[in-house]
Amino acid sequence: MKHIAIIGVGLIGGSFALDIKAKYPEVDINAIDTNKTHIEEAKSLGVIDKEISFEDLNQMDLVVIAIPVDATLKILPKVLDNIADNTIVFDAGSTKEDICKAIKNHKNRRNFLAAHPIAGTEHSGPKAAINGLFKDKTNIICEVEETAFKLQEKALTLFKDLGMRIRYMNPKAHDKHIAYVSHLSHISAFMLGKTVIEKEKNERDIFDMAGSGFESTVRLAKSSPAMWTPIFQQNKINVIETLEEYINNLKHFKTLMEADDFQSVFQEMESTNHIKKILNGIK
Amino acid sequence: MKHIAIIGVGLIGGSFALDIKAKYPEVDINAIDTNKTHIEEAKSLGVIDKEISFEDLNQMDLVVIAIPVDATLKILPKVLDNIADNTIVFDAGSTKEDICKAIKNHKNRRNFLAAHPIAGTEHSGPKAAINGLFKDKTNIICEVEETAFKLQEKALTLFKDLGMRIRYMNPKAHDKHIAYVSHLSHISAFMLGKTVIEKEKNERDIFDMAGSGFESTVRLAKSSPAMWTPIFQQNKINVIETLEEYINNLKHFKTLMEADDFQSVFQEMESTNHIKKILNGIK
Repeated sequence: MKHIAIIGVGLIGGSFALDIKAKYPEVDINAIDTNKTHIEEAKSLGVIDKEISFEDLNQMDLVVIAIPVDATLKILPKVLDNIADNTIVFDAGSTKEDICKAIKNHKNRRNFLAAHPIAGTEHSGPKAAINGLFKDKTNIICEVEETAFKLQEKALTLFKDLGMRIRYMNPKAHDKHIAYVSHLSHISAFMLGKTVIEKEKNERDIFDMAGSGFESTVRLAKSSPAMWTPIFQQNKINVIETLEEYINNLKHFKTLMEADDFQSVFQEMESTNHIKKILNGIK
Repeated sequence: MKHIAIIGVGLIGGSFALDIKAKYPEVDINAIDTNKTHIEEAKSLGVIDKEISFEDLNQMDLVVIAIPVDATLKILPKVLDNIADNTIVFDAGSTKEDICKAIKNHKNRRNFLAAHPIAGTEHSGPKAAINGLFKDKTNIICEVEETAFKLQEKALTLFKDLGMRIRYMNPKAHDKHIAYVSHLSHISAFMLGKTVIEKEKNERDIFDMAGSGFESTVRLAKSSPAMWTPIFQQNKINVIETLEEYINNLKHFKTLMEADDFQSVFQEMESTNHIKKILNGIK
């Protein structure tokens, strides 16, 4: 690999740029971003080498798309129109069904690998880019069989070099499960933040009472609405299903409290406690 | 201070023992715990020096009560019956109204300071005790005026030596606000864990998809049900109120999604984003 393009130099795109540069010092990192401030920031931080345009994509060995999922839907066909025969393109979006549908019949479908690296923080923009973000993280690949074998190999070698473990999944299953283990967590945190802020808006000192428990539970409420709104939009049906189940579980807990059935309240918590073991498994 | 008793040598009691011993190496740390395994563990870990009984409490300069809040209600009067005139007793429970009521008319009320150090982890037992747990943490003191001045001073000097900042509050306000900034977070995490486990119970591999976002949001679901059930019981009315508001906010979010009103979905998240600043304020 010699020439790499990052479309969207935020947290994810910027972190790919940093890790790729660290692993392959000979490559040049090119970037496309509608946000010119981000381009300048990324250049001055040494995250990217220079800005390019879509017409330059046919010079690239690899194109990484790391922009909000609604923008990916619009941009990906244009990217595939502009690349060379041996360019591999992958995305990093949190939804996979719509994107796979959108380019299903594109003549360069074989140049695209649908990916979802499960990595990130609640921060955004090129300043949020981190060295080693992808180490020991899971990368979910969808419809691998639709990508040309040699190009798959190129991407998979990169993922392995960055320390990621690979899981293969179909787009439908990906979107359904990720709604539970990621999207719901974000809504849960945002609404927790909202509930507390609404109550405590006139009493700023009260946040002195907020210890590390509140802080970790609400952490995801710092996430970017521009990134998350289109995710919820594209994964609407699955997310609504998870929300319904979550709301029902909360209502049930409330009903048990109202009925003074604290033995059942205890059991509700105890039967969830083994999340410890499950979480240890994902370390 | 020469003789200190810790009632309940778990995470909180054990951490007080460690920090007090580090700060005042000359004191002996005595313990009372109905769980004999915890006593043995705490001894072998060097967290405590020896086990004592209630009859020995009149030898103590300080008694720290760090047990579930229902047990505190039962034990505290007995503790106050047994202490000497210059013994200061404080608790560390997450509810304050019931405990203050329970000993309101006790003849040794002046020997008790109602405290809530906002510190902890999701772990429990003497093995979970940590050096420096209380450093830079908030300690909420309720009804300070009910405690004898000289004994207040003794406790406050200790809290300052351990690096804590003090906030004074009445028990009613404490219980109301802590329901929002702590108790609700725990239920939110427990029910998130439940929702995901229920869905994914037959698909263990799916937790490979759970990144750090899910992990931090669900962290509190590892907490001890034995500790949290009596907290929810004692703070029932406030906790139910927070749950109602939280459920309503979640329902509203779902309604917006169902109506395809993603502009409002965006705004919901954006208006909560300033939780960043609030959380930076509590660091």
